[in-house]
Amino acid sequence: MTHLPERLLAGYRNFMAQRHAAESERYRTLAREGQAPETMVIACCDSRAAPETIFDAGPGELFVVRNVANLVPPYRPDEQHHGTSAALEFAVYALKVKHIVVMGHGRCGGINAALNPAAKPLSPGDFIGRWMGLVTPAAEAMAGNPMMTAAERQTALERISIRFQVANLRTFPWIRSREERGELSLHGAWFDISTGELWVMDPETGDFVRPEV
Amino acid sequence: MTHLPERLLAGYRNFMAQRHAAESERYRTLAREGQAPETMVIACCDSRAAPETIFDAGPGELFVVRNVANLVPPYRPDEQHHGTSAALEFAVYALKVKHIVVMGHGRCGGINAALNPAAKPLSPGDFIGRWMGLVTPAAEAMAGNPMMTAAERQTALERISIRFQVANLRTFPWIRSREERGELSLHGAWFDISTGELWVMDPETGDFVRPEV
Amino acid sequence: MTHLPERLLAGYRNFMAQRHAAESERYRTLAREGQAPETMVIACCDSRAAPETIFDAGPGELFVVRNVANLVPPYRPDEQHHGTSAALEFAVYALKVKHIVVMGHGRCGGINAALNPAAKPLSPGDFIGRWMGLVTPAAEAMAGNPMMTAAERQTALERISIRFQVANLRTFPWIRSREERGELSLHGAWFDISTGELWVMDPETGDFVRPEV
Amino acid sequence: MTHLPERLLAGYRNFMAQRHAAESERYRTLAREGQAPETMVIACCDSRAAPETIFDAGPGELFVVRNVANLVPPYRPDEQHHGTSAALEFAVYALKVKHIVVMGHGRCGGINAALNPAAKPLSPGDFIGRWMGLVTPAAEAMAGNPMMTAAERQTALERISIRFQVANLRTFPWIRSREERGELSLHGAWFDISTGELWVMDPETGDFVRPEV
Repeated sequence: MTHLPERLLAGYRNFMAQRHAAESERYRTLAREGQAPETMVIACCDSRAAPETIFDAGPGELFVVRNVANLVPPYRPDEQHHGTSAALEFAVYALKVKHIVVMGHGRCGGINAALNPAAKPLSPGDFIGRWMGLVTPAAEAMAGNPMMTAAERQTALERISIRFQVANLRTFPWIRSREERGELSLHGAWFDISTGELWVMDPETGDFVRPEV
Repeated sequence: MTHLPERLLAGYRNFMAQRHAAESERYRTLAREGQAPETMVIACCDSRAAPETIFDAGPGELFVVRNVANLVPPYRPDEQHHGTSAALEFAVYALKVKHIVVMGHGRCGGINAALNPAAKPLSPGDFIGRWMGLVTPAAEAMAGNPMMTAAERQTALERISIRFQVANLRTFPWIRSREERGELSLHGAWFDISTGELWVMDPETGDFVRPEV
Repeated sequence: MTHLPERLLAGYRNFMAQRHAAESERYRTLAREGQAPETMVIACCDSRAAPETIFDAGPGELFVVRNVANLVPPYRPDEQHHGTSAALEFAVYALKVKHIVVMGHGRCGGINAALNPAAKPLSPGDFIGRWMGLVTPAAEAMAGNPMMTAAERQTALERISIRFQVANLRTFPWIRSREERGELSLHGAWFDISTGELWVMDPETGDFVRPEV
Repeated sequence: MTHLPERLLAGYRNFMAQRHAAESERYRTLAREGQAPETMVIACCDSRAAPETIFDAGPGELFVVRNVANLVPPYRPDEQHHGTSAALEFAVYALKVKHIVVMGHGRCGGINAALNPAAKPLSPGDFIGRWMGLVTPAAEAMAGNPMMTAAERQTALERISIRFQVANLRTFPWIRSREERGELSLHGAWFDISTGELWVMDPETGDFVRPEV
């Protein structure tokens, strides 16, 4: 017997019979020559918003960090283990990516938690509470707005947060300098799970607009 | 013009024309009813090893954390922002997943960095160095073995690290207790980019074996 | 009655009825003209890893030494009876083989004995202990690594040992000189009993890789 | 490219497509449960006399030592590396084989070398000369017989030597005692490359006779 959920094994069999069978040479080349993705995506853990699915991306195309609510903790060069910062450093210095995309999505559980701080944390360590604390100021500002519905506040904070995360990227001196020199560009995007719509952030205004596809 | 790399937009168009067209109802349902994945995967950022691709997973199936080298920093309930711990808390308490899979892969850049600590860090903050410091003891033990080739040491450490990350999952009291009650099972897997082979960790021995598919 | 196990006699009858019937002329020619194999294989005594079977070799093709764990004791021109050295001398000088292959395999009992030196030798003479003493330094280095599983240490030592045996071949001055002149090439291979996979040693890196077959 | 002679790779492909395809379950079982051969064969390196071929033996059936002229150096528990003694110890103590067969063959290059001691050794180390020194007394007795042709002397010494090797097996106290208790039986056989005939040694008289097949 195999120590993996049967559903995963069945999916792996499909992968080998179809995608890998069709792209085995590409995998072999990617193994031999190493990865060289042009784009890094910072996405959410949500099971409904995988970047490879939404961007129909093949092996070798996207270097992907996924954490709850696609956050970018700001630059802090201390002794701690900073997972997202480590991934950014690797993407920028080792892979020399040309694009970093922060991709949020609708009905995000993390954003929802930030808007509705629990009386009682999920676990005694309150890891979600502390992690989502990174957007607390914006969440509090939104929560205090009585004119928007709960769903409107949620979508608004999802987009506000994307703008904040793109701003946090610029707290990394080696990201800002590369952006200024035109070597790296930063993007925001928001995916509507319900309709499949993709909204892209206008870098000038911060507005989210739908691309003409 | 759209502020997203053209390659991503083209992929998104494919997604809408094919996958989303075929599964629009599923997306609508997932949006309305929320996600309920049974499995959480902790995977690497590497562009060649996306879990959704390898397990041919559709929307709603996998809750995915991706960080460099698929690490699980051990339980530490302090004031810091712990991204992976937050995702674990959300998966276990809010989503009640039944499986957590740590999935590593061959030719991992993070593991390679751990085996070959740079004289000079990638950036002054040395984020990769600090992050991969989580596997330093094992890396030093392997690096000191002059009889294995560099590639053999790398594969060995990739697998050793998966065993360590699964062990780190058990430092979370609410993971260990659920595992003991049979409500949650922990798994390890290793993907060979070159051949597409999936090796699954035997929970008794820690060995990686190929499932009969 | 015949003084041979019945199983062997039955096998011999099959051989005569099938293989020999089909190749009697070849045997006759090989008897008349003598053997002229191009390849010498140094293999293990293990009943699961016969080179003629794995390489589907017919009569006259492989000159084969088999000892426990396919070892090559290093060159030592003294008064002792050196069985493997004698076979090498015969293969190189009398048969003028072009290839020497050291072929190891998984789950090797000799390598296992080297990794787990018995408190009590198998017999008072401790022949296995002394014979496997030829790989003791590597075995001790591997045995001291607590991060690898027993099975991983075993596979690693099986491969390390093959590299050592190929190196030992080069301690024979008349092997090294022929290799340098391009008249003789040295190879390593490792057979996985469980899956039937053959892994071939890359002469540059020492890594074992699977040939594309 | 693969670093193995193309002929071997082609043979391996045949093995995988035919024999392994038909017996993959047997190989898997043999790997999982370990080998348990009932018979050990001490055979010659000669490319024309592989025991697996002549006895049509499958994986797991024969534990095989092969050295030049299928010799058994007598019991000598000293500090040296005794390859054949190590294999005997492993076969008797660890595998508990029930039969040991010394199998010689016609036109043996080693026996020929013993009958015609070279004025000049093959190599300065004279490994073949020293190794075949194990049968020198018998060789000298035969070489001095002017009534037999060269071919007759060769066949005679091949058979004499098999009787000597069986006798040498009995110098191992733990072989003799098991034979006396009826737990282990010793056999001699001689294979005629030219005709495919197998001659079996009568344990009482030492004569070689053809089994009725």
